Amino acid sequence: MIPGLVNSFLNSGGRMGQRIAILTGGGDAPGLNAAIRAIGRRALAAGDTLFGIRNGWAGMIGDGDVMTLERSRLSGILQLGGTMLGSSRVNPMKLEHGIEEVLRNIDRLKLDALVAIGGDDTLSVAARLAEHRARVVGVPKTMDNDLSITEYCIGFDSAVSVVTEALDRLHTTATSHHRVMVCEVMGRDTGWVAVMGGLAGGADMIIIPEFSVTVDEVVAHLEVRRKAGSDFSILVVAEGVEMDGLQSKNEAEGARDAFGHVQLSRRGVGENLARIIEERTGHETRATVLGHVQRGGSPTAYDRIWATRVGAKAYDLVVEGLFGEMPVVTNGTVDVASIADVVAEQRRVPRELYELAQVFY
Amino acid sequence: MIPGLVNSFLNSGGRMGQRIAILTGGGDAPGLNAAIRAIGRRALAAGDTLFGIRNGWAGMIGDGDVMTLERSRLSGILQLGGTMLGSSRVNPMKLEHGIEEVLRNIDRLKLDALVAIGGDDTLSVAARLAEHRARVVGVPKTMDNDLSITEYCIGFDSAVSVVTEALDRLHTTATSHHRVMVCEVMGRDTGWVAVMGGLAGGADMIIIPEFSVTVDEVVAHLEVRRKAGSDFSILVVAEGVEMDGLQSKNEAEGARDAFGHVQLSRRGVGENLARIIEERTGHETRATVLGHVQRGGSPTAYDRIWATRVGAKAYDLVVEGLFGEMPVVTNGTVDVASIADVVAEQRRVPRELYELAQVFY
Amino acid sequence: MIPGLVNSFLNSGGRMGQRIAILTGGGDAPGLNAAIRAIGRRALAAGDTLFGIRNGWAGMIGDGDVMTLERSRLSGILQLGGTMLGSSRVNPMKLEHGIEEVLRNIDRLKLDALVAIGGDDTLSVAARLAEHRARVVGVPKTMDNDLSITEYCIGFDSAVSVVTEALDRLHTTATSHHRVMVCEVMGRDTGWVAVMGGLAGGADMIIIPEFSVTVDEVVAHLEVRRKAGSDFSILVVAEGVEMDGLQSKNEAEGARDAFGHVQLSRRGVGENLARIIEERTGHETRATVLGHVQRGGSPTAYDRIWATRVGAKAYDLVVEGLFGEMPVVTNGTVDVASIADVVAEQRRVPRELYELAQVFY
Amino acid sequence: MIPGLVNSFLNSGGRMGQRIAILTGGGDAPGLNAAIRAIGRRALAAGDTLFGIRNGWAGMIGDGDVMTLERSRLSGILQLGGTMLGSSRVNPMKLEHGIEEVLRNIDRLKLDALVAIGGDDTLSVAARLAEHRARVVGVPKTMDNDLSITEYCIGFDSAVSVVTEALDRLHTTATSHHRVMVCEVMGRDTGWVAVMGGLAGGADMIIIPEFSVTVDEVVAHLEVRRKAGSDFSILVVAEGVEMDGLQSKNEAEGARDAFGHVQLSRRGVGENLARIIEERTGHETRATVLGHVQRGGSPTAYDRIWATRVGAKAYDLVVEGLFGEMPVVTNGTVDVASIADVVAEQRRVPRELYELAQVFY
Repeated sequence: MIPGLVNSFLNSGGRMGQRIAILTGGGDAPGLNAAIRAIGRRALAAGDTLFGIRNGWAGMIGDGDVMTLERSRLSGILQLGGTMLGSSRVNPMKLEHGIEEVLRNIDRLKLDALVAIGGDDTLSVAARLAEHRARVVGVPKTMDNDLSITEYCIGFDSAVSVVTEALDRLHTTATSHHRVMVCEVMGRDTGWVAVMGGLAGGADMIIIPEFSVTVDEVVAHLEVRRKAGSDFSILVVAEGVEMDGLQSKNEAEGARDAFGHVQLSRRGVGENLARIIEERTGHETRATVLGHVQRGGSPTAYDRIWATRVGAKAYDLVVEGLFGEMPVVTNGTVDVASIADVVAEQRRVPRELYELAQVFY
Repeated sequence: MIPGLVNSFLNSGGRMGQRIAILTGGGDAPGLNAAIRAIGRRALAAGDTLFGIRNGWAGMIGDGDVMTLERSRLSGILQLGGTMLGSSRVNPMKLEHGIEEVLRNIDRLKLDALVAIGGDDTLSVAARLAEHRARVVGVPKTMDNDLSITEYCIGFDSAVSVVTEALDRLHTTATSHHRVMVCEVMGRDTGWVAVMGGLAGGADMIIIPEFSVTVDEVVAHLEVRRKAGSDFSILVVAEGVEMDGLQSKNEAEGARDAFGHVQLSRRGVGENLARIIEERTGHETRATVLGHVQRGGSPTAYDRIWATRVGAKAYDLVVEGLFGEMPVVTNGTVDVASIADVVAEQRRVPRELYELAQVFY
Repeated sequence: MIPGLVNSFLNSGGRMGQRIAILTGGGDAPGLNAAIRAIGRRALAAGDTLFGIRNGWAGMIGDGDVMTLERSRLSGILQLGGTMLGSSRVNPMKLEHGIEEVLRNIDRLKLDALVAIGGDDTLSVAARLAEHRARVVGVPKTMDNDLSITEYCIGFDSAVSVVTEALDRLHTTATSHHRVMVCEVMGRDTGWVAVMGGLAGGADMIIIPEFSVTVDEVVAHLEVRRKAGSDFSILVVAEGVEMDGLQSKNEAEGARDAFGHVQLSRRGVGENLARIIEERTGHETRATVLGHVQRGGSPTAYDRIWATRVGAKAYDLVVEGLFGEMPVVTNGTVDVASIADVVAEQRRVPRELYELAQVFY
Repeated sequence: MIPGLVNSFLNSGGRMGQRIAILTGGGDAPGLNAAIRAIGRRALAAGDTLFGIRNGWAGMIGDGDVMTLERSRLSGILQLGGTMLGSSRVNPMKLEHGIEEVLRNIDRLKLDALVAIGGDDTLSVAARLAEHRARVVGVPKTMDNDLSITEYCIGFDSAVSVVTEALDRLHTTATSHHRVMVCEVMGRDTGWVAVMGGLAGGADMIIIPEFSVTVDEVVAHLEVRRKAGSDFSILVVAEGVEMDGLQSKNEAEGARDAFGHVQLSRRGVGENLARIIEERTGHETRATVLGHVQRGGSPTAYDRIWATRVGAKAYDLVVEGLFGEMPVVTNGTVDVASIADVVAEQRRVPRELYELAQVFY
């Protein structure tokens, strides 16, 4: 909290252009900085005054935690992972008078617009603020890729790349030792990372929340592969998968962290599945839990380009005064949708895509 | 040429399913093997007999050069760059009776379908064959990304990634030495690789064939940057760019190789531009010509996924008997278009995308 | 087991040169294929007949499991992870008459030399065989880097690179969320991977088996960092570390797999440490367990070069008849030592190196 | 030049510990920041005042260009390529009264020690200053790896890795098109990068300044490979190689930049060699000139570790008052040598290493 800084804004006044603030909420993701840079460069080029809200919605609670962003602060960040603004999972809707505090800070900072970059949680707050006529624009970010309407979310392509690279590595050790390798990846409710990473990494079986599979079916599939001459197998499983005989639902619930991802301090589905496969088949089986490595590192070229494009479009929405709206990618193009619609439901892996992956089993 | 092998096919007969052949033509690209694997796995799963034509259309001329592809040959190729079938730039339309020879070999091999993976050149042959009612299906591949209709071409995302990584590297040396770095990338007629790679790599200026820029404008822009406090600059220029004062058109013509890319044995636009910038501004300027490194290496996750998707769709077209057609990606989805339409014109970088890049100058 | 193939060797006779076999034992490691290639190319260039023993010592038990290696089989393997020969942890010294069976197979295959590439376990078998005057040469491989005498072991540099890259990724998410990240890496008895990876990845604390640290000291160090203004911390811990208050020794024993690495299906030190840090400091703490990802993927340039150099030297030893010996790297140069000496004791991280790392805390 | 800043130093006085300055000279290299961080962290931990000289020796000429380095400035730089201090090729020995100006600035800044990180050129200045009893310590950096005595130079391993990765990429396109690929790499006078990168990347021929090869021999070797069934070849050639029939020595002289590397604006040996091979063999041949990409990007784990170790040792030398000396790596360990001895002659590739590479042709 830097109240002094906040005050300095209140007094800065006078400068040409609008007063625009950016925040990033929820789990960090590669590409956030690319979006911040795109919004910020557009704003500074237009003569706006640019603020960064620190640590997500936390920076809009109480006295606020805000910094000014000059052009030099936006240099050299395009290729950096994480978020230069910091993030948190503080949700004003879960705090008493939280929404009011955010609204008051928007007022005190005399913001002409607030751009909120985040996933379901962060954008839900933005939607609520818009109901109060706050001048808020959203930008889609989630490594789970489960926001509805938009085909692109910041960070997803980078997460898929990390999974793909890990599967490439696991292949060499799987083939050398004729083993079964189980790789647990992100995906609490949906299997996007598992399906796309599994397709790209040549997984021999992909298990996701959308389509249930029994332990018997897994074991049977592995036996078919052995008989067909494949002496190793790579299984990808989304962390949110529940299988009878692996764990109780209560266990799984308890094992989730604040972002909804399975905590490593409890046995996850990957480890349980590996143990049972080894018991049932007699083949050496190992689990790898990628965890937070999936969130980190430099964004892929794809994530840099599209984060830039949706970021630039978010600034257009600010200029056009389209508050409560956000850029989305539909039909391969940057389009616009209402924030409320984007968070209304969860996008799930369609059967067609899941079946495509199965052809390669 | 393995005529004996060709004969063995002719006699193999009797086996269930169709007789499907795949070829890859033109310059190689990361993701070709992913497409071959997708088509092949679908075909083998359906009980088809699968052939690989070696070295593009060259393998369909004379006695042909063909190999059978068993399931084991399709293992472990997903992550490999290049093409396991080899490639060449032999174009039957430029050979006397070339098209007839290809048609005869389709006949002799009793092919029920031929899947041709390639760019403008390769697909133009496929379109011509389709006019002769040959059972041909296409798959889009070009690192230049300039086929019309389709938003996705095999290899483009990987090429953009290589350029992006190179720009990341050049940034560190440019900032350390306060230099201008000119990076020449692929793109004879269109600037897709330059614009997308430049956007992702944070280029300070991007010069492409679609939108002409003068040397004066380049120099003026660099001076503006210096005055604004930026003591280094990264310029990306597509190999096909022509600028007055750099080189004559004849020189440029002569400097292209068979794939249309500028040969390194003549001075390219990158080197000429670097020389002139140094003369005019007095700032140290260096050129890097990425060349064939842009073609090589393991495909990105994105290229593996979409090469798999268009490959799988190509097999669907074979099954449905939709010859003369090919899978394309439009509106973010795999769709179908006529091969003739895809090669009818060249897709160029739209002004909107080019202007987006300029915001970050 | 391919007894027919074994017989064909016995009858092949007559060919010029020696009969040389290679095997890789224990856990796989990047660089094994580079060593196989180096030994093999030297042997084939000398006119030798080259055999590959499959799956480590398992391929020398019973009827054996052997393949001939032609020059073409050695092409394109330099950059591949894993081992083209397969591996296993079968140890003839633990099988009844195991050593006799290996000796008999050496005899039946009329081998002039057997090159065994592996770590402590594999080389101990080689040392025992040498006591029986078997014509055996060793090559050092272990990702733990704990063989004595030699400064280089195949795979160690690649493992350190994987850890370094993972720490780079974890840094971005740690800084964005002001978290403590605990990264558990390989190292049952020694902390080489932890110290070198931690140094290269900028870890803020490194905990290894050689130097005990209490939970209190860890917590105190984290508090010092917070007070100094660092709102995130990265801890690297070797899997073999035991700390009072984390787990009983029995638990740890039970949790190791056949290569001595902690199995993921039990809580490892990383997860336990993360849980306790979070309880004691109140700061969000996450664990990442890199597991088998550390073994996989393409070897670093360094591993390729030195695996090639020790491989080439192993062939020199064969030519010179220096059996029971093996190449080692001492004083930055390839040298020779007795296999028995190399496995006699375990190389541990020296205090000086450990203290160097602490300067950067 | 920030004379004001210089004055503020002069007045800062009073603070405990010594006054230590660091500079980086010559071409930038991955690992420089790791060394700066190691020296700096040691110094700050000891209570010293730390200065960074900007842009190499240029920052010690005239009024100087110096900044103070706080602990926060040393955070997050370990994995960054380039040098946070900037660099230049300004050589005080080539300026009138240059050495005197440096000595005077050491005096004015009341430096207790100056650590100069660089190659032959930078260290020669340090050696000259030491003759004048200046309190100077050196640190070895050169991507050419040609300093004598020391086995390790900052940046070399990273350069070899970039070359290796490029060769991996070129392999896929070479095999797909059955081409000869010529890759020109750094190395004006010595072939270290070519030999090590070529070994790691599986080059089929490596041409370096130390051992002359004729065009006839190159062509003959390629023909041997074709006859043996290899339909592609990868040649690595150091930029400084001179071959009769390729170019005159004068041409080559003119084509070098200030760091001694061949400028791309003239035909280099790689492009000339490619042209002649294609003419003489009739096989498609392409040249790639890696250029400054070899200097850039994040340092390898190996470079980070050893740059840290030699950096830490440099600080030890300061503490011990061993001026005119520098850390070197000999026999695999960090040792100490006189700066004058290290720059006395050039380390060249020994015949044994060159011949090792040839075994794999």
